[in-house]
Amino acid sequence: METYTADQFNRCRTQLAPYVHRTPVMRSSQLDSLAGASLYFKCENFQRAGSYKIRGATNALLGLLEQGPVPAVVTHSSGNFAQALSLAARNVGIPAYIVMPSNAPEVKKEGVRAYGGKIRECKPTLEAREQESERVRLETGALFIHPSNDPMVLLGQGSACAELLEDVPGLAYVVAPVGGGGLLGGTSLAAAFSGTGCEAVGAEPRMVDDAYRSLQSGRIEGNTHTETVADGLRTVLGSYTFPVLRQYVKTIVRVEEAEIIRAMWLVWERMKIVIEPSSAVAVAGVLKDPERFRDRQVGIILSGGNVDLGRLPF
Amino acid sequence: METYTADQFNRCRTQLAPYVHRTPVMRSSQLDSLAGASLYFKCENFQRAGSYKIRGATNALLGLLEQGPVPAVVTHSSGNFAQALSLAARNVGIPAYIVMPSNAPEVKKEGVRAYGGKIRECKPTLEAREQESERVRLETGALFIHPSNDPMVLLGQGSACAELLEDVPGLAYVVAPVGGGGLLGGTSLAAAFSGTGCEAVGAEPRMVDDAYRSLQSGRIEGNTHTETVADGLRTVLGSYTFPVLRQYVKTIVRVEEAEIIRAMWLVWERMKIVIEPSSAVAVAGVLKDPERFRDRQVGIILSGGNVDLGRLPF
Repeated sequence: METYTADQFNRCRTQLAPYVHRTPVMRSSQLDSLAGASLYFKCENFQRAGSYKIRGATNALLGLLEQGPVPAVVTHSSGNFAQALSLAARNVGIPAYIVMPSNAPEVKKEGVRAYGGKIRECKPTLEAREQESERVRLETGALFIHPSNDPMVLLGQGSACAELLEDVPGLAYVVAPVGGGGLLGGTSLAAAFSGTGCEAVGAEPRMVDDAYRSLQSGRIEGNTHTETVADGLRTVLGSYTFPVLRQYVKTIVRVEEAEIIRAMWLVWERMKIVIEPSSAVAVAGVLKDPERFRDRQVGIILSGGNVDLGRLPF
Repeated sequence: METYTADQFNRCRTQLAPYVHRTPVMRSSQLDSLAGASLYFKCENFQRAGSYKIRGATNALLGLLEQGPVPAVVTHSSGNFAQALSLAARNVGIPAYIVMPSNAPEVKKEGVRAYGGKIRECKPTLEAREQESERVRLETGALFIHPSNDPMVLLGQGSACAELLEDVPGLAYVVAPVGGGGLLGGTSLAAAFSGTGCEAVGAEPRMVDDAYRSLQSGRIEGNTHTETVADGLRTVLGSYTFPVLRQYVKTIVRVEEAEIIRAMWLVWERMKIVIEPSSAVAVAGVLKDPERFRDRQVGIILSGGNVDLGRLPF
């Protein structure tokens, strides 16, 4: 596997800092009571473009710029990474092309346009996405950035956990949702590099528990169903993220759909903040496994807050 | 009218401080762009019991305790003050009786019980409320605290604005919603006592624009309709709050129902925080009157975040 060093990680953090918010850490006595633990919520829902994805997108872009001129960047995504890369590219004055399936919700397209991203529509198949990305690359010289399976993306995502560990010394665990594995991978590296003994724990919808099964089987597994309410976690691990999880992550807690929705409701109602279902997965994971977390100090990465308010699951 | 002094206000603030959160001030570049102004959001939705009401409730209670023993307190409210007084009383170890109409939503009753309040149900008429309050007073020796029309409640509510003015020097305006007038009255006193020249502005649903009309006519006006989505603002001014508004508030901006709902949506979607419709009235007021606020530094009191997530207006 790729080798990552604390020095490299810290260099990324320094480069990244001017482009991202240092998001606040929130507490909730009510959620603490429910969990029987002391919870520290890292609010990436307040991050620029509404999720932690701007961290990895920016880090990857800065990494490319160090190596030479970057005429443009391209990715295929209909989720948070699409907006994040659009904003990251605008911040450094580079065009971003976002390949999106023609049936992507209009609200997602508007989000991309609002951050200056150029949308290229394609048929809603993986093959069509990849063909269109390749076409953009040939036309414009754009460099491709993957939403999760990229060492620099992974390192960038870890900066959220690093900030949390600085702000809250003494965390026993940091819990992050796992989809493509960029956030959990980066989080586990940040925890390891911190030298504090803090352990990264993953949380995953049981309906798409490919990461859980991949750690069990020792190879990258897929999903047969992907209808989870946590739409950000439908993707699977990749060649860069899987080895990191295998080395640094011992535990992935799986949660049911009803538990995700309840956790989302609890955070909205008690903490008065808007989080997306994928973030609620991490909260549900902590509530699901009280023995593990009881009386400990536990960080939770609230990964994002981009939800369609007209289509809530409650 | 009652005379209020800066000394008295500052004494209240000091006494109050251990019982309330010093809530954060949030920014939003997207809302700034929409308003054409620099907005500073005082997040009382993150306050204990979910709204600024704990400030006035606590201050009134501490005031009573200074004068002698307080066997219990009683109020009639089915809104945020019910929960706030329950919590404030529990914090100082005194029973709180909350007279609520029998048709109050179960979620509100649960909120009161969760904070240790003792509910006394009555028929849903003002007469029945007052009779039941009187009965509780005779039975238990409880002292009555009004949700808004009380000098100590009013001074307590002003502490939110005072914190905001300390955290953000140079505000030209602070905008607060107006219902019973406790929050706007306290806010206007805090602005006046700050000596900064900051002006308090009210925001009110046009459907219940009694405060606007009261300032025009010079006497306390009522409302013929009260179906506004901003359920916290259906009450009218009282003998203590009206004179303060008359002396200190020059402007009340009136907003339509659709503008309230749009402002609520905007804050949820862009800022990722949960605010109740009454808070959205203040945001809508700023968006409604761009000439007044353009290029100025404007504080907005986000008064609370208690909404029934199962019954959203969008």
